[in-house]
Amino acid sequence: MSEARARRRGRGGGGAARRAERGAVSFETAKYIERNIPNFEVLNEEALETIEYNAETVLEEIGVNFVDNPAALERWKAAGADVRGERVHIPRGLARELIKTAPSQFTQHARNPARSVEIGGRNLVLAPVYGPPFVRDARGGRRYATMDDFNKFVKLAYMSKWLHHSGGTVCEPTDIPVNKRHLDMLMAHMTLSDKPFMGSVTEPSRAQDSVDMCGLLFGEDFVQNNTVMTSLTNINSPMTFDDVMMGSLEVYAANNQACIISPFIVGGAMAPVSVAGTLTQVLAEVLAGVAYSQIVRPGAPAIFGAFVSSIDMNSGAPTFGTPEASLVTYGAGQLARRLNLPFRSSGSFCGSKLPDAQAAYETANSLNMGLLSGVNFMLHACGWLEGGLVADFEKFVMDADQLGTLHAMARGVSVDSDAQAMDAIREVGPGGHYLGCAHTQAHFKSAFWKSDLFDYKPFETWEEEGARDTYQLATNRVDQLLATYEQPALDPAIHEALTAYVAQKKEAMPDAFM
Amino acid sequence: MSEARARRRGRGGGGAARRAERGAVSFETAKYIERNIPNFEVLNEEALETIEYNAETVLEEIGVNFVDNPAALERWKAAGADVRGERVHIPRGLARELIKTAPSQFTQHARNPARSVEIGGRNLVLAPVYGPPFVRDARGGRRYATMDDFNKFVKLAYMSKWLHHSGGTVCEPTDIPVNKRHLDMLMAHMTLSDKPFMGSVTEPSRAQDSVDMCGLLFGEDFVQNNTVMTSLTNINSPMTFDDVMMGSLEVYAANNQACIISPFIVGGAMAPVSVAGTLTQVLAEVLAGVAYSQIVRPGAPAIFGAFVSSIDMNSGAPTFGTPEASLVTYGAGQLARRLNLPFRSSGSFCGSKLPDAQAAYETANSLNMGLLSGVNFMLHACGWLEGGLVADFEKFVMDADQLGTLHAMARGVSVDSDAQAMDAIREVGPGGHYLGCAHTQAHFKSAFWKSDLFDYKPFETWEEEGARDTYQLATNRVDQLLATYEQPALDPAIHEALTAYVAQKKEAMPDAFM
Repeated sequence: MSEARARRRGRGGGGAARRAERGAVSFETAKYIERNIPNFEVLNEEALETIEYNAETVLEEIGVNFVDNPAALERWKAAGADVRGERVHIPRGLARELIKTAPSQFTQHARNPARSVEIGGRNLVLAPVYGPPFVRDARGGRRYATMDDFNKFVKLAYMSKWLHHSGGTVCEPTDIPVNKRHLDMLMAHMTLSDKPFMGSVTEPSRAQDSVDMCGLLFGEDFVQNNTVMTSLTNINSPMTFDDVMMGSLEVYAANNQACIISPFIVGGAMAPVSVAGTLTQVLAEVLAGVAYSQIVRPGAPAIFGAFVSSIDMNSGAPTFGTPEASLVTYGAGQLARRLNLPFRSSGSFCGSKLPDAQAAYETANSLNMGLLSGVNFMLHACGWLEGGLVADFEKFVMDADQLGTLHAMARGVSVDSDAQAMDAIREVGPGGHYLGCAHTQAHFKSAFWKSDLFDYKPFETWEEEGARDTYQLATNRVDQLLATYEQPALDPAIHEALTAYVAQKKEAMPDAFM
Repeated sequence: MSEARARRRGRGGGGAARRAERGAVSFETAKYIERNIPNFEVLNEEALETIEYNAETVLEEIGVNFVDNPAALERWKAAGADVRGERVHIPRGLARELIKTAPSQFTQHARNPARSVEIGGRNLVLAPVYGPPFVRDARGGRRYATMDDFNKFVKLAYMSKWLHHSGGTVCEPTDIPVNKRHLDMLMAHMTLSDKPFMGSVTEPSRAQDSVDMCGLLFGEDFVQNNTVMTSLTNINSPMTFDDVMMGSLEVYAANNQACIISPFIVGGAMAPVSVAGTLTQVLAEVLAGVAYSQIVRPGAPAIFGAFVSSIDMNSGAPTFGTPEASLVTYGAGQLARRLNLPFRSSGSFCGSKLPDAQAAYETANSLNMGLLSGVNFMLHACGWLEGGLVADFEKFVMDADQLGTLHAMARGVSVDSDAQAMDAIREVGPGGHYLGCAHTQAHFKSAFWKSDLFDYKPFETWEEEGARDTYQLATNRVDQLLATYEQPALDPAIHEALTAYVAQKKEAMPDAFM
């Protein structure tokens, strides 16, 4: 419910009723998006075939590096690749053949079955920002992120109507030792939310902790037979698969958990400056990575990832919400669909240092492109600021509100006889108005998407109320959400087992901050 | 040129060189957009045929009102319509037959031939906001618009690289009598800019003044044989064509000038709450309006217009940048293309009272939708604020900057051998980087779109420079542009003739403020 509506209703009711209504916010979560609109496709058949041909040339002729990972090289040899040192040359067609075992769609289970999501097909699952070492809000400014911040973001994601997923490293809790923070982060996702979440990828052992903790949460058998985590496996573009990321991938794939195989591209730095060249490299890298996941365990869920930004060639800064990144993303979506793989891309990307107009233009450009490019899993869907260095509290709720527009857009256009509204047009006639007609009365509550954050009031009312901009409204919303958060129920025995696991793991090793 | 670049270059050069460079801003105008990307289409063939069938039913069975306009009723009778009172029932198929004489594309000439635009086909022409009675800027706040404001907006549009068109009533100069302000507005477009512009529609006599002044500017013969103005003919939805708008349309069409026939829809008030119902009514209204223009003069340019917003059913406020309006616009684009008519829709729409994040999200949603829906003429492409009540100076330059992204998106994806960049991928190889490679060096200047307004600097630099948000950067940009404006040359004899025409017209009638 919007603040405005809560206030309005609150006027007539008592304080308890108001509190109860506000509490209800946490239970209104939309189902993941099922698109009823086409995808936007920028590449024609000839362009697609050219890029696909070139990607195979890259794999065969140039090859990819699997670094510090002799076991991977052995696996590649056994699969038929030409391995020279750490360079893996993959014969034309081999990777494409290997990835055929990867599912085109899979269920990621949440501990609350109503929150499980389908990743792939025409679906779109939205997850919050991932990875920022800093947080920002209007009162506290920009600062290193802590576990307290992390917990707050998990709560905000849990309460957001339009987020389907709790994400992973919503910010880096820098006050917790590097070798232990994954335990606290997992604990937060598992206990403060009941939405699906992501596992740790910063060490293979931490991936294993993620699997083990999921065993406690879901039951070990359930985990072996179902997918309960996605994990973000970045590729060191160009064409380098490091041992940490691949080690984590090996753990997840072996345990039937989903890996997002994601080239990390700042255009002009990690890939060519041209859209077609970038797409070629992205496709080659994803083919190699997904093929490797299928060598480790045929049938393990894998997602075609593409993190793409452009660059300001004057300063070297990555830029976001730009047309070239959009073109790459539209094209990558087409390539992913031709491989029958789920597609991960887009997000609330922006380069701005504040959640201001620049941030919103750039973010809206990215979110719209994400919907229309056929993204199936959108990480960073809210809260991203300053090129991903900052998780911003106000922007988190601003973006989360805008995600509602994607849900409504994706519904597409009904032309059933009710939607044709011919009776309404007849009833109203030339010169009339539709506000009171039967068709409008029947549909007015659901006809139009409405922001729960923005100010729609007339100028005079808005001015009397303090002429607040979106930033100020968002500060209020963050406060209101956190004040009314209620933890979802969890079997105390499970909670206890998880707590014991974390305590035991933390005790077993000294703190490390590097 | 961006402020930043101007400053940077300025350091090394003298004041004169700097001034000359800044002066050069005014000449960097992009050509209108020629799309090399597909349109996004939300309606399938069955949905399109249903809506088209229903629109003909509306025209035949319900009919449209031509109010206080006996001559129009006579014309409709002669054309084969069934006229009862002021209600015109148009037999199925008649309007569709009549509009066949309207051109699918036409040239709107500017007095500077390099600035002439092609309206229709795969082109997109961008024009500024139209109609607000108020203006706003950071220093002066919100206030009634004056002729001084109007002149400033014409200058800003002239200097904007991404605007192809000077527009029409960029704001209402409320300090000039209602019956005379069209003369001053036309004078401003004709003398302060050399981009194409729009004529007055507030009275048929003012439309005639617009034609007559264009006769002085372009030569009377030229005007009779070419299109030198577009004009905005709003329909009083639902299905009402008032005498003032139609009187102006009659003047423009008779003189071979272009009319934008534009239903004005706040969904749920002037049209049904459903997308399909709204599209049905929009199509019926446009068919009737364009058909009427072709009755007046077969072959006169006419544009399929659609101004669409949704509504907040709680407050009754129109809402902008919303998914339902986008779906209507995507569908309207399809309907326009099936009629072979140029399409006008979209703009920098927002409901926000400030050029803040709300404004930018809503605007970016609308601009992206405008590009992908196949809009040919985008009025309101920059400067729109507060539901169109306000023309905002800062937002004008923010939006104008974002229009650059549409140009780059529209270029689409090249897959020529240079764009394939296989040599670059070979040269760099796994683990390398592309910043220094030959391909990047050859293309880095033009590879990525870059804002001339946003801050791309690292956090620390940005903070040292005052931690300015987009709003503050935009204030600086407005100041810088207006300070460096230089008027384009115009034949003094023409200037004199226009001045004399305006003076004579103003003397001939008393001031009227209603």
